[in-house]
Amino acid sequence: MTDKQANAMWGGRFSKGVDAIMEAINASIDYDKRLAAQDIEGSRAHAAMLAAQGILTDNEAAAIREGLLTVLSEIEAGEFQFSKALEDIHMNVESRLKEIIGEPAGRLHTARSRNDQVATDFRLWVREQHDAAIEGLQALIRTLLDQAEAGAGWVMPGFTHLQTAQPVTWGHHMMAYVEMFARDIGRFTDARTRMNESPLGAAALAGTGFNIDRHMTAEALGFDRPMANSLDAVSDRDFALEFLTSASICAMHLSRLSEELVIWSSAQFRFVTMSDSFSTGSSIMPQKKNPDAAELIRAKIGRVLGATVALFTVMKGLPLAYAKDTQEDKEQVFDAADTLMLSLAAMTGMIADLTANPDALEAAAASGFSTATDLADWLVREANLPFRDAHHATGALVAMAETKGCDLADLSLDEMQSVNAQITEGVYDVLTVQASVASRMSYGGTAPARVREQIAAWRARLG
Amino acid sequence: MTDKQANAMWGGRFSKGVDAIMEAINASIDYDKRLAAQDIEGSRAHAAMLAAQGILTDNEAAAIREGLLTVLSEIEAGEFQFSKALEDIHMNVESRLKEIIGEPAGRLHTARSRNDQVATDFRLWVREQHDAAIEGLQALIRTLLDQAEAGAGWVMPGFTHLQTAQPVTWGHHMMAYVEMFARDIGRFTDARTRMNESPLGAAALAGTGFNIDRHMTAEALGFDRPMANSLDAVSDRDFALEFLTSASICAMHLSRLSEELVIWSSAQFRFVTMSDSFSTGSSIMPQKKNPDAAELIRAKIGRVLGATVALFTVMKGLPLAYAKDTQEDKEQVFDAADTLMLSLAAMTGMIADLTANPDALEAAAASGFSTATDLADWLVREANLPFRDAHHATGALVAMAETKGCDLADLSLDEMQSVNAQITEGVYDVLTVQASVASRMSYGGTAPARVREQIAAWRARLG
Amino acid sequence: MTDKQANAMWGGRFSKGVDAIMEAINASIDYDKRLAAQDIEGSRAHAAMLAAQGILTDNEAAAIREGLLTVLSEIEAGEFQFSKALEDIHMNVESRLKEIIGEPAGRLHTARSRNDQVATDFRLWVREQHDAAIEGLQALIRTLLDQAEAGAGWVMPGFTHLQTAQPVTWGHHMMAYVEMFARDIGRFTDARTRMNESPLGAAALAGTGFNIDRHMTAEALGFDRPMANSLDAVSDRDFALEFLTSASICAMHLSRLSEELVIWSSAQFRFVTMSDSFSTGSSIMPQKKNPDAAELIRAKIGRVLGATVALFTVMKGLPLAYAKDTQEDKEQVFDAADTLMLSLAAMTGMIADLTANPDALEAAAASGFSTATDLADWLVREANLPFRDAHHATGALVAMAETKGCDLADLSLDEMQSVNAQITEGVYDVLTVQASVASRMSYGGTAPARVREQIAAWRARLG
Amino acid sequence: MTDKQANAMWGGRFSKGVDAIMEAINASIDYDKRLAAQDIEGSRAHAAMLAAQGILTDNEAAAIREGLLTVLSEIEAGEFQFSKALEDIHMNVESRLKEIIGEPAGRLHTARSRNDQVATDFRLWVREQHDAAIEGLQALIRTLLDQAEAGAGWVMPGFTHLQTAQPVTWGHHMMAYVEMFARDIGRFTDARTRMNESPLGAAALAGTGFNIDRHMTAEALGFDRPMANSLDAVSDRDFALEFLTSASICAMHLSRLSEELVIWSSAQFRFVTMSDSFSTGSSIMPQKKNPDAAELIRAKIGRVLGATVALFTVMKGLPLAYAKDTQEDKEQVFDAADTLMLSLAAMTGMIADLTANPDALEAAAASGFSTATDLADWLVREANLPFRDAHHATGALVAMAETKGCDLADLSLDEMQSVNAQITEGVYDVLTVQASVASRMSYGGTAPARVREQIAAWRARLG
Repeated sequence: MTDKQANAMWGGRFSKGVDAIMEAINASIDYDKRLAAQDIEGSRAHAAMLAAQGILTDNEAAAIREGLLTVLSEIEAGEFQFSKALEDIHMNVESRLKEIIGEPAGRLHTARSRNDQVATDFRLWVREQHDAAIEGLQALIRTLLDQAEAGAGWVMPGFTHLQTAQPVTWGHHMMAYVEMFARDIGRFTDARTRMNESPLGAAALAGTGFNIDRHMTAEALGFDRPMANSLDAVSDRDFALEFLTSASICAMHLSRLSEELVIWSSAQFRFVTMSDSFSTGSSIMPQKKNPDAAELIRAKIGRVLGATVALFTVMKGLPLAYAKDTQEDKEQVFDAADTLMLSLAAMTGMIADLTANPDALEAAAASGFSTATDLADWLVREANLPFRDAHHATGALVAMAETKGCDLADLSLDEMQSVNAQITEGVYDVLTVQASVASRMSYGGTAPARVREQIAAWRARLG
Repeated sequence: MTDKQANAMWGGRFSKGVDAIMEAINASIDYDKRLAAQDIEGSRAHAAMLAAQGILTDNEAAAIREGLLTVLSEIEAGEFQFSKALEDIHMNVESRLKEIIGEPAGRLHTARSRNDQVATDFRLWVREQHDAAIEGLQALIRTLLDQAEAGAGWVMPGFTHLQTAQPVTWGHHMMAYVEMFARDIGRFTDARTRMNESPLGAAALAGTGFNIDRHMTAEALGFDRPMANSLDAVSDRDFALEFLTSASICAMHLSRLSEELVIWSSAQFRFVTMSDSFSTGSSIMPQKKNPDAAELIRAKIGRVLGATVALFTVMKGLPLAYAKDTQEDKEQVFDAADTLMLSLAAMTGMIADLTANPDALEAAAASGFSTATDLADWLVREANLPFRDAHHATGALVAMAETKGCDLADLSLDEMQSVNAQITEGVYDVLTVQASVASRMSYGGTAPARVREQIAAWRARLG
Repeated sequence: MTDKQANAMWGGRFSKGVDAIMEAINASIDYDKRLAAQDIEGSRAHAAMLAAQGILTDNEAAAIREGLLTVLSEIEAGEFQFSKALEDIHMNVESRLKEIIGEPAGRLHTARSRNDQVATDFRLWVREQHDAAIEGLQALIRTLLDQAEAGAGWVMPGFTHLQTAQPVTWGHHMMAYVEMFARDIGRFTDARTRMNESPLGAAALAGTGFNIDRHMTAEALGFDRPMANSLDAVSDRDFALEFLTSASICAMHLSRLSEELVIWSSAQFRFVTMSDSFSTGSSIMPQKKNPDAAELIRAKIGRVLGATVALFTVMKGLPLAYAKDTQEDKEQVFDAADTLMLSLAAMTGMIADLTANPDALEAAAASGFSTATDLADWLVREANLPFRDAHHATGALVAMAETKGCDLADLSLDEMQSVNAQITEGVYDVLTVQASVASRMSYGGTAPARVREQIAAWRARLG
Repeated sequence: MTDKQANAMWGGRFSKGVDAIMEAINASIDYDKRLAAQDIEGSRAHAAMLAAQGILTDNEAAAIREGLLTVLSEIEAGEFQFSKALEDIHMNVESRLKEIIGEPAGRLHTARSRNDQVATDFRLWVREQHDAAIEGLQALIRTLLDQAEAGAGWVMPGFTHLQTAQPVTWGHHMMAYVEMFARDIGRFTDARTRMNESPLGAAALAGTGFNIDRHMTAEALGFDRPMANSLDAVSDRDFALEFLTSASICAMHLSRLSEELVIWSSAQFRFVTMSDSFSTGSSIMPQKKNPDAAELIRAKIGRVLGATVALFTVMKGLPLAYAKDTQEDKEQVFDAADTLMLSLAAMTGMIADLTANPDALEAAAASGFSTATDLADWLVREANLPFRDAHHATGALVAMAETKGCDLADLSLDEMQSVNAQITEGVYDVLTVQASVASRMSYGGTAPARVREQIAAWRARLG
């Protein structure tokens, strides 16, 4: 098929014909150039090992290793000319190396293949993202701890179904997110440990007949060990999937917190005021602070989950060993990692800058008979009613208060006793929101004292 | 929070602090500049309408419309300086317009808002993608028709479970994909009709008190009508979702055809030879043609489906009217559309360049007693056996042939009659693969005559 | 492998060994019995056609058709013994038919296969779901129209970013959802038209040598035509995917409305009161009405989208023609269809029973300088300011009002004129929320008159 | 709204009106009855703790604990009458308990809520699934080790792009899957550790004022510790998501192996013969063995991934603490867990019963100049050519062999030397597939000795 026919066949977008189409679908250099540093690090370790094993001379290895540093500095300086005709980062780097050092460059690819090379590069890159995610999560947790400490004693409504259920403390609410983000750290930590094995030396798929030392390159690159099966080494993308699923869970947590911030900053809630830095305003409604950053972070779960689904779908039903389909892994992980790091940073900034409104929180907490459970529990404890009966009596009292248009604490003792004769003056002690939260001293409960214990424990853990 | 604190808090990637983070998460100009032509088209229509309604003077409108063409030509020439501080394409264009024409630029935004503006721009862009997809599908169908015509009579194995079931024709197999891709055209066509309504004039969310003519701008922009509810107009992203789901089904079809091409070009099948243009080779195994393009297209379903899941997740549970979350719609659709168009073009090229191997196809078709069903059908037709009994008798004959290591046609009439006495010489007429496919004359069947009818019908339909 | 070995190998859950495992993974009767009516309808049409074409005698066909009705009545009466050993609905029905009518039962399967049979059955079932979805959507739209009519003039805050932006009307807000659900009807209608083709007669995959009349069976089953390619007929599952994607978009709309209902029924918003019927209470907090149904509907998008992803993943990369993988289609579609119909019915009930609180709506609308845009527009219209300048002046006035702690309408004319000398008494006419919504008379705008026009138009359209 | 109106409004499926609809969407007993054993286990631990803390008397606790065992035995015997009016498993059990033991039943719910109760039940259930998955994976790995051992020395083609690349061994290929499934064990093990914390005692959301001992119940239920934040305890579903993502990765591995089995059992490959137990046949084509089980397992990734997407979508943007949306978690996890365990068992059976065809494997391995890399490596090692030059020379030799229609080993030494003069007789030693695989002695390589080391290591590890 000539290019002229191609013109007629595909119309505008691909008018340049077959070669342009194949280059557009096949070449990866536009995005895998992000792996340049990892590619060069891997090649330098490989060259050192080849020399140690006598496969290259020391001079050859030194020339290669030095030349690669030159290539890296060119890339870092933005002076490197990436070529689409050379397809990918590996060929771009090797080709430039040859220009710089000549013949020994052709010896670098001994006992390896692009299959194990790209697996190594990408694994090194993804490993870094685990560390970055952990670091970002720690920063966010520290910021949440600050908020929790400031408001360990502020009372706010604890919602179920977005309906006021029982009073809780602001600090307790913040600490719930600390738990979530700490689990995220746990997942990234486990995943990093699992993925920290070196594919380098698996060669095309079968290993090699050269007397290489895979343990040496693994160690040089910070891997715990070489991967134990060369077919698996070149076809495995579990490490990318596990990063994506961990990132998706983390992004889900961020979406929950963002949703709360959007609702809390509505005129109807007024629980918090977002800082100007993370809001956008309106030139004619200066009081309006649109929580743009919160909304965008809320949306990012879509992007990360989409990337996860994308890679699962790519991997579904792929025969061993290497298939070109796996080239689709990188852009998804790049985008998800960038999205996650940006979301963590933006959330950290939003939380750090967030101003809570303790008065609005407490006022909301006190409405809606939020201490009814405390009354029921008092009846169980002090009057020895079975819980189900205590609930029933409490219901009658709430109905009475509602009819009268007053709070539970505004009912007289006589009125109380008309429902249950065992009620005494002591009951009024449990009907304030402060008393309510102070009483929730069970492990993990919302009592300020408990919350402060957890804050201290987390501060100690983070060091 | 000062930037210095920010440094300490976030570490490397976001060391520039709050402003940089907010800009990174909030500004959309890096990608929504792809909407420049649509933005300018929409603004020109809006300006013309404002003048027609007496809201602008004719001179003002003329200056604006002229100035916008200047901006467009700057963008097309690559001379436009996009500013991230100006956030998005709308503000970038308006700001430059003001530099060019001065005061009247400030009147352009009368009776509209960025909310209806971006909805209009994006809708125009997505509408074009429907047309591009339809055009790409038509090209692919034409190429499949050529392949079908060339091999309308070539016999190949019809597989179920990747096991040979009955002989079919190459043309018939190609035409199955014509049906699939034609349904894709139907979906894009329906979706285009449904989405072809103008949001312009919905303003921020409530409509406007200016006496605008939304029908006029709708017509000018090629829309069938203005959208009937302004809240819906600024919050709806159905058109993006429906494009994505249509694209996902199309990408799924492409993945099936790609899978077949990968399997067919294996050394074990050798049904087809891919052209060099869409394969990659190996410098040391010149006979090896890796079907890279087919593998990549097979993988692209992941990308398109991922984008679909992403946008669904974004839209889940969003209150009306506009929410910043929807800013996440564009990159997903851009990427999915680019992916689809590239995949269609690459598949068209692959199919056009594909060389089938009729001898290998026929040899495979003839193995595995593939005409056993024809024998059973013969027993039903000629010996009036119930189908289930005919199946049973056929099973006995296949077992006999298998034991003897021969084909069904190699059994003698005596042997045949030992299983069923009503079998006559006539049975041998139905045991060849050519006779088998020729007999499948039911509507939609694999008989070459039927296939040629379908090819002719499709050629007539495509014009 | 003996069952005893199996015991040792798999432990508890599959201790019954190989046969039990294969039956568990392979048999579909537990769920495909839902296709019984469709299976029998298809077989009756097939038998009638076979007789019309002289392939069966009239007596045979009559016996088969009569016998199938008997089987159907047994199934409908709950007396049918489904057998897992018979794997699927097709074999269960045919086997029972044979017990009832004897030999002719064995002739029913002439010129067809389970591959086209299941495709036909499932297509008939899915077609019904399109009709059910359309019916459910029409009921929901009618209920929304009732709400819209009741509150066509109620003013409420129009939100962007969940911040008050401009006043809108309750009726307008309801009508936004009418538009969404109407588009859903459009999608189901288009999909139904596209999928209404008959696979019957495609046989195993290649068509058949019997002189069948596929147009006759297609017509008998209400299909518009037979499918044009037999390979496509048995391998296509587009109709299921398109139902799922249409259902996903509809479920997304439902999730948005549900989210609003949850937020609106919070103590902080109090915009609406949900009926007891669709809420759950608390025995001790009688004022608490948890919006359970709204939350559950909000969540159902997950289920429907999950089913969609599931089937896309199943179909990815499947070679033609039939593959057992497609057996995974049914449970996903069954569950998604059930979920959608239940969600539509529950939402219809909730909306019908919903009590809005017009006073709370209006009070919220009036806060937050929500008519600032009206003031800016007045400056453009009456003082001929460019829009951008008018916005600037309005910003100054809002800031002044905010400082004084009053509304815009409470500023004196002097104060107004201190910002812009062209302001006259007339400005106060546009600063009330009633005036604001009344002025939004642009097509699709929120003015009560416009909303009532749309309600009338929709009532006329629905008939 | 009366039921009669409902009839008119919803039509057939929901003709029973509002109550039926609400029950249908709200009640969970149809599926959460699978949590009966966990619910009772949790309640018994709770009762014992209440007594130990003096909140219940010993007699009360004993009656409750005894009564619960009676309820459990009724459920296990299938004699329990589940009531939809009682909504869920918790109320069904407590209600029956009250019938059996009377008043003390009402005291069981002291200091807890359904929110922490369901979180505890579900966590216990999901924890068991981790154990079941690990057990199932170990069984599968053992079976793969058996296959690997049997064929540690069988040579087969190592594919890249489904094109023959280099010879590998059957054992090596099997061991690649051992690595994958072992990583799955690692993921389930880590997830189990992370999720093994007790929500019990978090009560509704805030903890409780009763002096409970959450460490005691945690220990009684086999948890490592109580969860540290009560809000998190009732709203967290990470444990379900992490199970689902781990299951999805495992299902993806299974889909890859299944795909290979389907391709390998095609007439064109004939690498393996599936056992009758996991295939279905055809009554008329007895040689046909449809790999139904493999196809179904290949498809199951869709189901598990779909469940994962479903739950992520449900959790997106949910405010704290408890929301009814999370009720959607159970069916997804139930189905995914059942699917995974069945898939693992079926795959274990298929692999155990699988018959490889070593002759076909070796014949395929020897075709396609699969030892060309060995020749290139020889040139590097023995003739000290740079790898890139060695590749070039090898390419010339392969082209020569292809032109002559012979294998590389059939070229004469003269012919060899015409391309590179340094080639000696020794080269022929590396051109056989046996020599090729034997030479791949790098760690993780395909050499039979290396494969046997790995088998032994894994056997030792599994114990």
